[in-house]
Amino acid sequence: MSSQLPDTSARRAPENLAILLREPFVAMSDGLMRRLAAAGHPEVRYAHGAVFQYLDDAGTRVSDLAARARITKQSMAELVAHLERHGYVERVPDPADRRAKLVRATARGREVFAIARAAMEDVDARLDAALGPARVRELRVLLDDVRTALGDGS
Amino acid sequence: MSSQLPDTSARRAPENLAILLREPFVAMSDGLMRRLAAAGHPEVRYAHGAVFQYLDDAGTRVSDLAARARITKQSMAELVAHLERHGYVERVPDPADRRAKLVRATARGREVFAIARAAMEDVDARLDAALGPARVRELRVLLDDVRTALGDGS
Repeated sequence: MSSQLPDTSARRAPENLAILLREPFVAMSDGLMRRLAAAGHPEVRYAHGAVFQYLDDAGTRVSDLAARARITKQSMAELVAHLERHGYVERVPDPADRRAKLVRATARGREVFAIARAAMEDVDARLDAALGPARVRELRVLLDDVRTALGDGS
Repeated sequence: MSSQLPDTSARRAPENLAILLREPFVAMSDGLMRRLAAAGHPEVRYAHGAVFQYLDDAGTRVSDLAARARITKQSMAELVAHLERHGYVERVPDPADRRAKLVRATARGREVFAIARAAMEDVDARLDAALGPARVRELRVLLDDVRTALGDGS
């Protein structure tokens, strides 16, 4: 009856899967916001994750950022304008189309990425300690399988 | 060497856990948005999930909705105003404080909740078929354990 993974068959299956996915994501984001504020970046708020999460290293158009984040172009433009005002991103000409602009992280914006990476390493270490590396690895594989199963047609 | 769960130890541990959590959530939301549009609710967009996800049956103040969704009170007020204009929510006096208002779903808003519940049942059925019920149950338990491990201090 023993196995490497704890027997979970008797535990209740908790609520709505979307909420189960959302809550740890929000907890990680809350932790990151606290770190950013402590590191001198209180102007970066939760909503600006919609910019940073979807920004390519070489820069990304506002319309592409909006599509990736599932918000309107106007809402994305407001988030970008806030970050531009506070020195986190800049707008540069798109080498592929000089009439278009790319949003790109500045040196100050790259500090945010570095803090986010450190925060994720901390989360990984805390989860390895709390759940054990084998269960965390299983979680990653399961999430990847869910992504594949839902694909674009959920 | 055989076990009920597939041996996943040899598979690579995929990327950033926050992205692994985010992608299935976004896929589920995309599916819900398509269902809503097909059911005559194209005015409900992804961003309005920040209202519906955090709305109590008896109604919720805009400031509480904003805090739960991690956006500014002004941004939440704009999302609520859009949904009010299209008949999904209404503002009613707060029985606990007549000067305050609660945002509450209308009958049309409750249709959105019904469609969301049907969409989640579909997702659950598709994941049971693709991953098997035992692995889906394990995923739910793991996500619940991650939420507990990260708590409020991630």
